[in-house]
Amino acid sequence: MIFSSALIENAVNEFARLPGIGKKTALRLVLHLLKQDPAQVKLFGEVVTRMRDQIKFCKICHNVSDQEICSICSNPSRNKALVCVVENIRDVMAIENTQQFNGTYHVLGGIISPIDGVGPEQLNIYSLVDRVQQQGIEEIIMALSPTIEGDTTIYYLSKKLKEFPVKITTIARGIAFGGELEYADEMTLARSISNRLPLESYVQK
Amino acid sequence: MIFSSALIENAVNEFARLPGIGKKTALRLVLHLLKQDPAQVKLFGEVVTRMRDQIKFCKICHNVSDQEICSICSNPSRNKALVCVVENIRDVMAIENTQQFNGTYHVLGGIISPIDGVGPEQLNIYSLVDRVQQQGIEEIIMALSPTIEGDTTIYYLSKKLKEFPVKITTIARGIAFGGELEYADEMTLARSISNRLPLESYVQK
Ligand SMILES: [Zn+2]
Ligand SMILES: [Zn+2]
Repeated sequence: MIFSSALIENAVNEFARLPGIGKKTALRLVLHLLKQDPAQVKLFGEVVTRMRDQIKFCKICHNVSDQEICSICSNPSRNKALVCVVENIRDVMAIENTQQFNGTYHVLGGIISPIDGVGPEQLNIYSLVDRVQQQGIEEIIMALSPTIEGDTTIYYLSKKLKEFPVKITTIARGIAFGGELEYADEMTLARSISNRLPLESYVQK
Repeated sequence: MIFSSALIENAVNEFARLPGIGKKTALRLVLHLLKQDPAQVKLFGEVVTRMRDQIKFCKICHNVSDQEICSICSNPSRNKALVCVVENIRDVMAIENTQQFNGTYHVLGGIISPIDGVGPEQLNIYSLVDRVQQQGIEEIIMALSPTIEGDTTIYYLSKKLKEFPVKITTIARGIAFGGELEYADEMTLARSISNRLPLESYVQK
């Protein structure tokens, strides 16, 4: 692509670094911004920069947060004895969107996957064991994608938590095996949480 | 969509203002940026803001430019006696990408379209007449999309330029009637410029 303006070329290249944005789409976005008020474009740049600069990760659950403790963990009406373990913050958002879950979360930051070089030590597992040990958690819901890696992670966590008096459940298999949790529709996801199963029945199956 | 972070919610909303970017895509982009180095995200914001703040429009051809006069108009090896009239800067880029055209441009900034309330006075037509009158232009290539609005604009321009000793041509009809110039492949576009026709043969047809 040939540009007669370095300003535009640089902006197109920046947009084209984003996933799923090719050069043609990047150009379309840049030409759109060119028609906007400079103050609006400045706001766009500032909001995006501030988001990355100021974002924190909750000291309790590792969810993204504007404060040291996220708005879910600090909400007095959420059930702190019920913890939903998820792979990433997209899963938190997917479950929050169902508006059916009143517990809290624990974001692992990934899933055990030897092929990708992700072992338990790369994930937020110690802090989960700490929470169970120290905070009177009654139930852990394993809301991991129903894949081999998800099952491996559930198995590993259940061994780590075996010594504690905590009930471990898994979300109901409303989601097809191999399906991605975050792409499930809200109805399926809400139902699979309310129909959650004790871990034993899951492992036997 | 429910967010536990206002920082993320604001950034998603900003991305979702862009054309063709829905909330889901916006979230995907934001979560990608969240994984990038803050300095890289800051650069993204700065490059986009600077682009909008510092962009100029060439005083001769109305193309986007980093200077008062664009890099095409100020290039001594470009043929200043040959001017290609286009609707917008995307068309300039499309033709430049063919690397087959050595003249200069005149960006109208739109096309005559009474339905959309765009009349000749909204377009860069006076400055085109000025250029023809004062700068010894020998040939004007009408490179407008082959639509009714394109034809109307060509007809209007040809009347305005009738009194001057300038040859008016149109790009060859390699592009299907109703087709958008900017989406034509480079081969078709390059060929339709090199096979351009005198206006008379176009109007008769
Ligand atoms: Zn939290
Ligand atoms: Zn110019």
